[in-house]
Amino acid sequence: MQRFECDYAEGAHPRIMEALLQTNKEQTPGYGEDEYCEAARRMIKLACGREDMDVHFFVGGTQANATVIGSVLRPHQAVISAETGHIAGHEAGAVEATGHKVLALPAPDGKLTAAQVRECVETHWEDPNRVHTPQPAMVYLSQPTETGLLYTKAELLALREVCGEKKLTLYLDGARLGYALGAKRNDVFMADLAQLCDVFYIGGTKVGALFGEAVCICSAGLNEDFRYHIKQRGGMLAKGRLLGVQFETLFKDGLYLELGRHAVRLAMAIRDAFHGGGCAFLYDSPTNQQFPIVSEGVIAQLAKNYSFSRWKTLSDGKTAIRFVTSWATRPETVDVLASDIRRACRIHGDKAPVWSVEMPE
Amino acid sequence: MQRFECDYAEGAHPRIMEALLQTNKEQTPGYGEDEYCEAARRMIKLACGREDMDVHFFVGGTQANATVIGSVLRPHQAVISAETGHIAGHEAGAVEATGHKVLALPAPDGKLTAAQVRECVETHWEDPNRVHTPQPAMVYLSQPTETGLLYTKAELLALREVCGEKKLTLYLDGARLGYALGAKRNDVFMADLAQLCDVFYIGGTKVGALFGEAVCICSAGLNEDFRYHIKQRGGMLAKGRLLGVQFETLFKDGLYLELGRHAVRLAMAIRDAFHGGGCAFLYDSPTNQQFPIVSEGVIAQLAKNYSFSRWKTLSDGKTAIRFVTSWATRPETVDVLASDIRRACRIHGDKAPVWSVEMPE
Amino acid sequence: MQRFECDYAEGAHPRIMEALLQTNKEQTPGYGEDEYCEAARRMIKLACGREDMDVHFFVGGTQANATVIGSVLRPHQAVISAETGHIAGHEAGAVEATGHKVLALPAPDGKLTAAQVRECVETHWEDPNRVHTPQPAMVYLSQPTETGLLYTKAELLALREVCGEKKLTLYLDGARLGYALGAKRNDVFMADLAQLCDVFYIGGTKVGALFGEAVCICSAGLNEDFRYHIKQRGGMLAKGRLLGVQFETLFKDGLYLELGRHAVRLAMAIRDAFHGGGCAFLYDSPTNQQFPIVSEGVIAQLAKNYSFSRWKTLSDGKTAIRFVTSWATRPETVDVLASDIRRACRIHGDKAPVWSVEMPE
Amino acid sequence: MQRFECDYAEGAHPRIMEALLQTNKEQTPGYGEDEYCEAARRMIKLACGREDMDVHFFVGGTQANATVIGSVLRPHQAVISAETGHIAGHEAGAVEATGHKVLALPAPDGKLTAAQVRECVETHWEDPNRVHTPQPAMVYLSQPTETGLLYTKAELLALREVCGEKKLTLYLDGARLGYALGAKRNDVFMADLAQLCDVFYIGGTKVGALFGEAVCICSAGLNEDFRYHIKQRGGMLAKGRLLGVQFETLFKDGLYLELGRHAVRLAMAIRDAFHGGGCAFLYDSPTNQQFPIVSEGVIAQLAKNYSFSRWKTLSDGKTAIRFVTSWATRPETVDVLASDIRRACRIHGDKAPVWSVEMPE
Repeated sequence: MQRFECDYAEGAHPRIMEALLQTNKEQTPGYGEDEYCEAARRMIKLACGREDMDVHFFVGGTQANATVIGSVLRPHQAVISAETGHIAGHEAGAVEATGHKVLALPAPDGKLTAAQVRECVETHWEDPNRVHTPQPAMVYLSQPTETGLLYTKAELLALREVCGEKKLTLYLDGARLGYALGAKRNDVFMADLAQLCDVFYIGGTKVGALFGEAVCICSAGLNEDFRYHIKQRGGMLAKGRLLGVQFETLFKDGLYLELGRHAVRLAMAIRDAFHGGGCAFLYDSPTNQQFPIVSEGVIAQLAKNYSFSRWKTLSDGKTAIRFVTSWATRPETVDVLASDIRRACRIHGDKAPVWSVEMPE
Repeated sequence: MQRFECDYAEGAHPRIMEALLQTNKEQTPGYGEDEYCEAARRMIKLACGREDMDVHFFVGGTQANATVIGSVLRPHQAVISAETGHIAGHEAGAVEATGHKVLALPAPDGKLTAAQVRECVETHWEDPNRVHTPQPAMVYLSQPTETGLLYTKAELLALREVCGEKKLTLYLDGARLGYALGAKRNDVFMADLAQLCDVFYIGGTKVGALFGEAVCICSAGLNEDFRYHIKQRGGMLAKGRLLGVQFETLFKDGLYLELGRHAVRLAMAIRDAFHGGGCAFLYDSPTNQQFPIVSEGVIAQLAKNYSFSRWKTLSDGKTAIRFVTSWATRPETVDVLASDIRRACRIHGDKAPVWSVEMPE
Repeated sequence: MQRFECDYAEGAHPRIMEALLQTNKEQTPGYGEDEYCEAARRMIKLACGREDMDVHFFVGGTQANATVIGSVLRPHQAVISAETGHIAGHEAGAVEATGHKVLALPAPDGKLTAAQVRECVETHWEDPNRVHTPQPAMVYLSQPTETGLLYTKAELLALREVCGEKKLTLYLDGARLGYALGAKRNDVFMADLAQLCDVFYIGGTKVGALFGEAVCICSAGLNEDFRYHIKQRGGMLAKGRLLGVQFETLFKDGLYLELGRHAVRLAMAIRDAFHGGGCAFLYDSPTNQQFPIVSEGVIAQLAKNYSFSRWKTLSDGKTAIRFVTSWATRPETVDVLASDIRRACRIHGDKAPVWSVEMPE
Repeated sequence: MQRFECDYAEGAHPRIMEALLQTNKEQTPGYGEDEYCEAARRMIKLACGREDMDVHFFVGGTQANATVIGSVLRPHQAVISAETGHIAGHEAGAVEATGHKVLALPAPDGKLTAAQVRECVETHWEDPNRVHTPQPAMVYLSQPTETGLLYTKAELLALREVCGEKKLTLYLDGARLGYALGAKRNDVFMADLAQLCDVFYIGGTKVGALFGEAVCICSAGLNEDFRYHIKQRGGMLAKGRLLGVQFETLFKDGLYLELGRHAVRLAMAIRDAFHGGGCAFLYDSPTNQQFPIVSEGVIAQLAKNYSFSRWKTLSDGKTAIRFVTSWATRPETVDVLASDIRRACRIHGDKAPVWSVEMPE
């Protein structure tokens, strides 16, 4: 059984394991105040082109999200998210547990638009009874989205503009950021994020690390006292250097980007296989998650050798499934998978290929 | 510079690193539902002699404490702790952040007594206006305490009895449990904890693991829905098997106990050196933390080659300092340290040894 | 200017003011433990036909809702509400501030159905990753709804059944309950609520009292320690007898029901006037809130002498407005209003009456 | 039975009842945006000599405290209080329920000193591991204290100075402020509070109103969005004008001050009676609460006709009891009480009068 249901099925990239081994016996101060964390922070700042930003390491994404959001918002404020956003549906109410409402806006493809953020905020401020509703004060995005899609630089600029105008904090969850950076159609680079976002995080857990997310605070003011929040929310790792060592490795010799490209290349091979088999896709994802729409026959056939997720049951009886590649996916496995997909589609698929979305090169 | 200021300065025990390496490329389900976690749970249950208890893995102690306490208490309830307890003073208000008051009782040596717990609870229930004060509903202990001391089995039985009588949940924080189990004067074993506590945790971070704490839920009812709480508080590690692999290794061939004994043996050597140098101790600790009372001269002398903590300034101008050993402390380092201690005490110490507490064998 | 924008524009019914005056100089114990509260509790229990239920008085509805919901739910649990529910949109995130997500389900007319509650809960429990989402554990209804509509007894029975089956707490917000009881088409009486709900509250603020809501806890278990929660959430009125005196008066000689009928009768007169003027209605409300759909001309004309709310802008350029009557609305005022409505509709309205919903007798 | 156990046993001052009656039928906007609230705000600002401050009305003190504290503190911050402070011991953990720790400092007489606040804050900031403890950011005082004592202007100036220096918000709870203002030994007036505090509240519930507290926000910045917080914490009264009408009345013709003086004058008569009977006092209170130390015999004798509180059992077998007067206490009742006290002390008291504290004029 080959697993394609997530990008955290394996341990860490060999270079990371090696770095952890090499530093294992060293003694360092705890809680992220060691030299490895310091070095990793320097490298991340360099990659982002921002000497003045702050970098804090977390073990996981839910923790990072709840800590960042809880530290920025005052009690009466809320965070805007796409209804498919990770904080809206996959974190067991972690944001609400810090006392804040998630204002989930409809987003069929998982992406928020500047227009809908503007409308949400203006509607609030135009309401004479607005103090009876939570005040929108933050925008939560993810890149790529839960649907595998990417914000373009133009879209992010528009969101940045509305955030500036409406005094909203712009926060971007980069749990899978490597797979955005590794996508062909991507035009948003780390330095762009460091300019456009108030806070964003660079995901390690899903992109080659054992675990770890690097929260980058780009706006003056938001960093004050942030380490108290990390501690209070349970996110301050005693042996903090484990995070430093990992991120230092990920940012050395372009490893992070290399891992992202690797996974995306294999995802494209899977996409091509489904495409060739005549499948439409739920989302036109240029990243490591692919959402082909298939029949039950195809599902049954592929499930014999592969694990993947049922994503959404469609009205025509078909199902959108999700295949996820990662830094650890092997090309030879994908070769076999691709031919298995073609065979399954041939036997169980529709005759004529129908595309729900156009597929650019 | 040799570090003796904490027990989390190094990485992990070599056997753990080896196990992580060997399993690194395997694919497993996430979130602690893999075979390694399952195996580790079985081994812990076996060690505790309780097939019916539940085991959940956390990355760190603050997270474990906040999640357990937050899951057990209803909003109007409070947790009783010694005022030196970790939750009372070292977790940045993590328990209060879940909405609950920590009822910190005075405890000069860091240990709560059954009598003071009983009095606290009876005072509450006898008050006709009790609904104006938080209701004590849980007792938080740690073994060893922050002061390096151990509860005896008799003391724990008395606390258990008052908890049963007053319907309090008994929770024991075992962040350094290995160093309790490894102490000569200890008479509380893992199976005792599993009988006496409603919940306790077995600390890995400070006892040989890279990170990790194993929360053991011994009382029926408290386990229901516990995994939601782990997720909500940000404690559900994506690659959960990292925790399983580590605890499996710690519980194989008695490694956990061996590491505890190792650190305690070296702590005793440090104790003997200070003792021989004529120092009194703030607490008569039989575990891996030692609190000798020394002059500034001794501090200055030792600080040249060793890092350790100033713990408390005493009224006579002397200072209680803290030396901590760990699973990773090397005997040869302690040999040199012991002779350095003796020399420092000879030069800078008081002439006549004065004991504040009796030192059994 | 006559106010029809809410049902809390005046003070209290004269009998209530009289009762407060008569008891003003008496000395009583505080915090709701006086004889007036006791008497009011007895009368409410009698009206509900439940000797065994518990009654607690609150000053206002947001406080009552947050306290009840916060006391029932465990941290990982959520409350289901219609998206138009008061807790979902008009309480400034008070429920989220207690740490809980409001699961807002679409409800075009403001009413939840048993089927959609069942589906929401089953979807949760069928999800193998359900611990990543808040657990639905409570259903919040209001009677009448924010849209002025009523649940029938059959609908409530169906909701009760799904709550029983799925172990959900059924909570009904009766901020305007008097105007439900006073409606002709109503078939749900106080004794029904006491049988069907786990908790409900009888609204005083909007039905003749200066302020006050009577929370009725009908299910064993939910009452335990409830007074701590009232105190902690700031809802325990020092001079609690003010609430007792008011509810005693409301429940004496059928005053509560009489006030409800009065307001509904006048609301029907307003409805008839808009109906006669050819207006359709956004909701077919049998209670004290009426939602006629009118042109801007009608709005401008009526706004000269009356205050009311713009409720919703419709796609055809018309607007649904809201007129609210109360226990204090005077028949002579409504007589004049009715004729003003007819005139405004004649001048500014559509020619042909079009009904969006059928209007029963 | 005459009640002297609290100052909220009766309803409201007749002038307040009259004002409520006179305005009862008027229609006003809700939620504190009516003309009565506006007028009351103007009068309070005038009394405070601060046109630029903001005034918000609450129904009760616990609500006011939790809302103010919760709105000012960021999640990692804590509020300093005397351990006898109302928020530390009498509000059922309402502050902790908003996520914040109460740093309760020892205060034998109920008063915090500038020195101990400074030490608490400096200890925090000097700690290199301070992010592991909640950050002190606010000081909570009450005037009078729970022990009936008054801060002098000099003491408040010193506290103000340390708050300014250490960037702490200074918040003063004036639940019984009228009884401070009405005391002979008082040198802190409303205008002083408006200069010295960042926020304070003027208590109505205990000083002549049916209910109500006026929160005065004196520091720019703290008022922003405050009304959201009121709503979210359940403190926004629908018929807000009830609070406006009451405070307008209290501030007309010096009624508030008159009520304060009345209660204090009668409290002094009670003090004199105990004094004359040879009793010492637990606290030398110049306000409406008196804490005489008496024998069980005296208690039993007085308990036949009066209700009062046992405050503290002393080591010599005697008990400090509490008698509280209020705006509603009748002079003739106190006359009889005074003679009853003298008789009880004659029969059951100690022979020789012993003063624990000096009693100025």
